[in-house]
Amino acid sequence: ARPRVGYFYTGQTSETLLNEEIRKLTVGDFQSVPIVISEAASAYQAVCEMFVEDVGSLFVIDEKGLLAGVLSRKDLLRTAIGSQDMNQVPVSVIMSRMPNIAYCRQNDTVVDVADLLITKEVDSVPVVHTKGQGFEVVGRMTKTNITKAFVSLGKRK
Amino acid sequence: ARPRVGYFYTGQTSETLLNEEIRKLTVGDFQSVPIVISEAASAYQAVCEMFVEDVGSLFVIDEKGLLAGVLSRKDLLRTAIGSQDMNQVPVSVIMSRMPNIAYCRQNDTVVDVADLLITKEVDSVPVVHTKGQGFEVVGRMTKTNITKAFVSLGKRK
Repeated sequence: ARPRVGYFYTGQTSETLLNEEIRKLTVGDFQSVPIVISEAASAYQAVCEMFVEDVGSLFVIDEKGLLAGVLSRKDLLRTAIGSQDMNQVPVSVIMSRMPNIAYCRQNDTVVDVADLLITKEVDSVPVVHTKGQGFEVVGRMTKTNITKAFVSLGKRK
Repeated sequence: ARPRVGYFYTGQTSETLLNEEIRKLTVGDFQSVPIVISEAASAYQAVCEMFVEDVGSLFVIDEKGLLAGVLSRKDLLRTAIGSQDMNQVPVSVIMSRMPNIAYCRQNDTVVDVADLLITKEVDSVPVVHTKGQGFEVVGRMTKTNITKAFVSLGKRK
């Protein structure tokens, strides 16, 4: 966009201008690729997948490919220090389960998702499309994506 | 601050204005309380401390109370799925160690710390004061703090 220079009438406070600029940032521009795992996978497989993909959360999908749950590093660490064998625990037992999962859409604003992450006290939410009775996972929005969006705002010239 | 309304001369683009507003946010206004643990503590104790305090990283201090290392959920998860007994592994063996630790100061801008978190690929950095030959840990800046700063910018009226 061409920057406006010098005197300009806004009819707005500078705060409102700031607000407007921030609300132009949408999920579609900042989301990451989602890493998914099957409900039947073990907790051990999930940990390996997290390290291989270098992510802090996995989205668990059912046999139809629809969102069934979310698995965090915290969920896995809790299981790892417990007495159960990580190879014997399916992820479906330790994940956060639908419908108790916060999610967002590609056209949501980044600031609304940031607010959601803080309110729900989670590190990431899936970006979803409605599909039949459920949700297809099309992306991932994390505190890392929010941090990148923040840097992009502050570094603009 | 009193908002400026209507016509105003800036000599700047609206982008520069945005930049200025963002650079007013400093670490001191957004940091959290740091949670520290002794170098001699075990990995198991560290996991427990993380759950009790509900944090994603701990700062490890030496016998003088100075910063010795940083411990993340990822470090602990890696150890937990390994073959060692978590009770027998001291945190000093698995932590990221000084001087290879990113840190910040209370008067740094939030955007510079956000940039540091992304560049160094870490979830948190200690906020430090110089003390003798080392650093005293006075705060914690995480991607959660950045996310809160982002929300505060977007929700201003």
